[in-house]
Amino acid sequence: MPDLQTIVEDIHQALLPRLGEGAVADYIPQLAKVDPKQLGIAVATTGGELHMAGDAATPFSIQSISKVFMLTLALGKVGEGIWKRVGREPSGSPFNSIVQLERENGIPRNPFINAGAIAVTDTVLAGHQPREAIGELLRFVRYLADDDTVSIDDAVARSETQTGFRNFALANFMRSFGNIDHPVEHVLGVYFHQCALSMTCAQLARAGLYLAARGANPLTGHTVVSAKRARRINALMLMCGHYDGSGEFAYRVGLPGKSGVGGGILCVAPGVASIAVWSPGLNKVGNSLLGSEALEMLAARTGWSVFDM
Amino acid sequence: MPDLQTIVEDIHQALLPRLGEGAVADYIPQLAKVDPKQLGIAVATTGGELHMAGDAATPFSIQSISKVFMLTLALGKVGEGIWKRVGREPSGSPFNSIVQLERENGIPRNPFINAGAIAVTDTVLAGHQPREAIGELLRFVRYLADDDTVSIDDAVARSETQTGFRNFALANFMRSFGNIDHPVEHVLGVYFHQCALSMTCAQLARAGLYLAARGANPLTGHTVVSAKRARRINALMLMCGHYDGSGEFAYRVGLPGKSGVGGGILCVAPGVASIAVWSPGLNKVGNSLLGSEALEMLAARTGWSVFDM
Amino acid sequence: MPDLQTIVEDIHQALLPRLGEGAVADYIPQLAKVDPKQLGIAVATTGGELHMAGDAATPFSIQSISKVFMLTLALGKVGEGIWKRVGREPSGSPFNSIVQLERENGIPRNPFINAGAIAVTDTVLAGHQPREAIGELLRFVRYLADDDTVSIDDAVARSETQTGFRNFALANFMRSFGNIDHPVEHVLGVYFHQCALSMTCAQLARAGLYLAARGANPLTGHTVVSAKRARRINALMLMCGHYDGSGEFAYRVGLPGKSGVGGGILCVAPGVASIAVWSPGLNKVGNSLLGSEALEMLAARTGWSVFDM
Amino acid sequence: MPDLQTIVEDIHQALLPRLGEGAVADYIPQLAKVDPKQLGIAVATTGGELHMAGDAATPFSIQSISKVFMLTLALGKVGEGIWKRVGREPSGSPFNSIVQLERENGIPRNPFINAGAIAVTDTVLAGHQPREAIGELLRFVRYLADDDTVSIDDAVARSETQTGFRNFALANFMRSFGNIDHPVEHVLGVYFHQCALSMTCAQLARAGLYLAARGANPLTGHTVVSAKRARRINALMLMCGHYDGSGEFAYRVGLPGKSGVGGGILCVAPGVASIAVWSPGLNKVGNSLLGSEALEMLAARTGWSVFDM
Repeated sequence: MPDLQTIVEDIHQALLPRLGEGAVADYIPQLAKVDPKQLGIAVATTGGELHMAGDAATPFSIQSISKVFMLTLALGKVGEGIWKRVGREPSGSPFNSIVQLERENGIPRNPFINAGAIAVTDTVLAGHQPREAIGELLRFVRYLADDDTVSIDDAVARSETQTGFRNFALANFMRSFGNIDHPVEHVLGVYFHQCALSMTCAQLARAGLYLAARGANPLTGHTVVSAKRARRINALMLMCGHYDGSGEFAYRVGLPGKSGVGGGILCVAPGVASIAVWSPGLNKVGNSLLGSEALEMLAARTGWSVFDM
Repeated sequence: MPDLQTIVEDIHQALLPRLGEGAVADYIPQLAKVDPKQLGIAVATTGGELHMAGDAATPFSIQSISKVFMLTLALGKVGEGIWKRVGREPSGSPFNSIVQLERENGIPRNPFINAGAIAVTDTVLAGHQPREAIGELLRFVRYLADDDTVSIDDAVARSETQTGFRNFALANFMRSFGNIDHPVEHVLGVYFHQCALSMTCAQLARAGLYLAARGANPLTGHTVVSAKRARRINALMLMCGHYDGSGEFAYRVGLPGKSGVGGGILCVAPGVASIAVWSPGLNKVGNSLLGSEALEMLAARTGWSVFDM
Repeated sequence: MPDLQTIVEDIHQALLPRLGEGAVADYIPQLAKVDPKQLGIAVATTGGELHMAGDAATPFSIQSISKVFMLTLALGKVGEGIWKRVGREPSGSPFNSIVQLERENGIPRNPFINAGAIAVTDTVLAGHQPREAIGELLRFVRYLADDDTVSIDDAVARSETQTGFRNFALANFMRSFGNIDHPVEHVLGVYFHQCALSMTCAQLARAGLYLAARGANPLTGHTVVSAKRARRINALMLMCGHYDGSGEFAYRVGLPGKSGVGGGILCVAPGVASIAVWSPGLNKVGNSLLGSEALEMLAARTGWSVFDM
Repeated sequence: MPDLQTIVEDIHQALLPRLGEGAVADYIPQLAKVDPKQLGIAVATTGGELHMAGDAATPFSIQSISKVFMLTLALGKVGEGIWKRVGREPSGSPFNSIVQLERENGIPRNPFINAGAIAVTDTVLAGHQPREAIGELLRFVRYLADDDTVSIDDAVARSETQTGFRNFALANFMRSFGNIDHPVEHVLGVYFHQCALSMTCAQLARAGLYLAARGANPLTGHTVVSAKRARRINALMLMCGHYDGSGEFAYRVGLPGKSGVGGGILCVAPGVASIAVWSPGLNKVGNSLLGSEALEMLAARTGWSVFDM
């Protein structure tokens, strides 16, 4: 196999003619303004290398990718008890579906659909004020990425607060089943800010390294979770990380990953590398179209699929 | 790590006191008669070893595990075109649900729920008589297991034919959408016979070796599928192999697997081994209760999880 | 109010320019052949008059209207016990939906959706051969209409048998829940023949008179059901007689009615008249478009709505 | 038939031994405190009589019965245009279901389920402050009942505001589809107050007289709606007035009616009388158990069913 830097550049080059494919998320006004013709790739290896191509140094809204970090934080606080509040199964439904919640008494299917992530956020609040929980998450992500410049884009958070009626519906619905403890405004206040985390591919790839390295960041030596927990978070990402396109992603790419409607995807090659890609155009189930393609090419060329032998 | 034979025997020993837990499938009269207090484990390594414990030489009805073999056969005949007829996403529903079919115009979510497997069987029929297709599958499975004693239990097949109204409903429903080409009686004639395949854990583990060894059985040298296709079938098994308990299985075990209501599970450790376990008592989503436990213990002790690093 | 004959002719005249609107049912090949440019109206009063206009003497396939007669027959045989097998609530779903059956354990919502009518037919079979049950129904409808020329169109029955996969799905699905006692082929054999009853508007209006006259046909003196039962069948027709357009029909017309995909509608003005209209073009929920219009005009001009004061 | 006063008293007497049957609504804390052993009946005839029995002079929370008055008000303001925002079909689902909203793009099935009533309330707001809309409704109901003592129970309204998460979910969900124009807090502010209207059976029966008398209150001479509109509101009440028990109510009682979880039911005998019953214990679909029984007895003894002949 050619060296990794070459592969990453090749993939970027191959996809350049397709920049702009897919549809930029438009239900959050602030996201709709992003220039669709961008593509960034960053690969952080467990050995300490960082390979970048394209717009890997441009910050973007990580949106639902933040669900991985919030889940990690929640597991640290609540432990496996969190699974009383949220399931671990793929949903078979769009990311913002409420049908399943009615059928299953307000218990979301998994922590990576909106309802599940909101329930996770509720456990992290734990009686604190939204501001404190937001601060805690921001510190945690900066710690993961080992980078204090990671920030939250307040304009995006505000934009979501004003238009996120569907999330207000989900949270109130769960609250009616007793599966949200705090005032809905507080929970969503945190939730919208976590979604508004702004990171570059490089920062994101580094922040995800603990998932590729038995729970500890090999660059900093920081232990984040146990090896077992890292493995389990990866399992959840593979099963549920791409909404109703998770099966497709596993079939084509074969790596645990979590996508966001901002066009980013964080992907983990266990034991080998943490990968972040970003391109704003989405496919019809809401995952980055070129980002998915880039990852399929990367997995094919590196043999990193967890199903590879 | 201790040698594999010891691990396999340890696990069997550890679970002996729990024999009989779970509920034997009773909707197929013939299955309801099986003695629940049985547990077999067989591990066939890509290096050619076979490790067995407990009732690993007792034949049982593999039921839905046959869906893996039928899919392999269908992919060989139809290629990727089969995905026009069936999806690749987890269903978020019980194995015999019809709701999703109505919502999605008769296209089953994946080839491992009943509706999907029936559609796959329809493609294998390809204008032939049921008897021929059944013969073809039996020859194929014998070839995979390298064992001509593998057989079909006619009493089980008959039992299912007489009571499988739900499957008749699924098939007719798909036919109303044009997603079944042959007479429903023909398709289900084949389907009920494939489910009635009777195999021991040892035979099943050997039959699955191609999925652990880049598509070719290392014992016989027989190439079954390409390495890429083996990887993809594994991805499908991980995502959808345990019905609405697939997420749980990935979380606990972390290996591609396919369960059957007869109490069997075929599991794949890519590059390393093919594993078959069997114990008739089922958990509440219809997967072998002790079989799942055995596999969780095996994965924990061997580090074979695809998410291990 | 002008005399009834004038009203009936006026309505026919007013709708003549619109003949051909709507879509003829095409999922039954035999029905797709019918000339759409037809409209018949027949009003049989409890006082013994019969007013006709347009194609009121042309036989057509009454299809689901037969569900009213089969229910009447079943109530006579089984009495109120039938409500253990089928509900009395509007379905909120299309006529051939299977989703509700899965959610509610194989108990159809009401006797006027397909699943419910199939369950009703199953109770009428009562251990007999399909041929006998078909004969019984035909004799019953001839008795109701006081007309021995009412017949069953075998070509239509055959056409449905060959293409009615959705009904086979519904019946098998209910059988899997134990809500169908007889072999599915037998039940549907009867069901497809009842749907293939061929009647003119004039015959149909007369056959429905018992529902407008306290359960007894005032022309023949034949008592069919008690006054209480007639009232209750009317209630069911108003609530559920037009599938997912029942609310609309009650809002616009305000009379109990039952439609069929052949384009016919039987309507009851309690105490006053039995009305049959027929025009093959259907609206988007599957009810005769011009037939509904004709009835809305009739109710407006006569003040026969049950909500009129 | 014996005189009406005797009938009303007989019915009350006959049901006395059963006082306390059913379950008082407990999801609104304030309602849970009501003494279940109460039963009131009031019949206001179009001829000007008022017959009462039992607790007909005790005020109770009319809850969803208010949806009839709010719909009447909205139709006066918006006219038939309101049907772009809400359907006219029975829902086939519980009163607070959100599933249907997701399937049908935020358009509630009818104005008498919670979602539909919330959409209706939104149209009445029409840019005004909640306080103004509440005032307008209160004046309207006082006008209908010709009684200025009708009031709103603020404790009930507050109780619902604090616990009505499900309604917040419904409103936000519809807002996400653009089917709610005003801030959710405003719309629900009005909605919770309308539900908290406190009336006696006598007041309620009088307030509903316009629906029994071609749209005008015969006692006051006040014209409320046209005869046609009164007829149509009655049709809606019959089809959808008792949630998922509407079919049962039509089958047993045969009169347009609207129930509330406070245990009240307003019922209309077109041309004859407006009836209000109240008893707090509910049946399993959420309608007053003894209230329904009382109405069934009343319809049987008076022959007022719209299906009677």
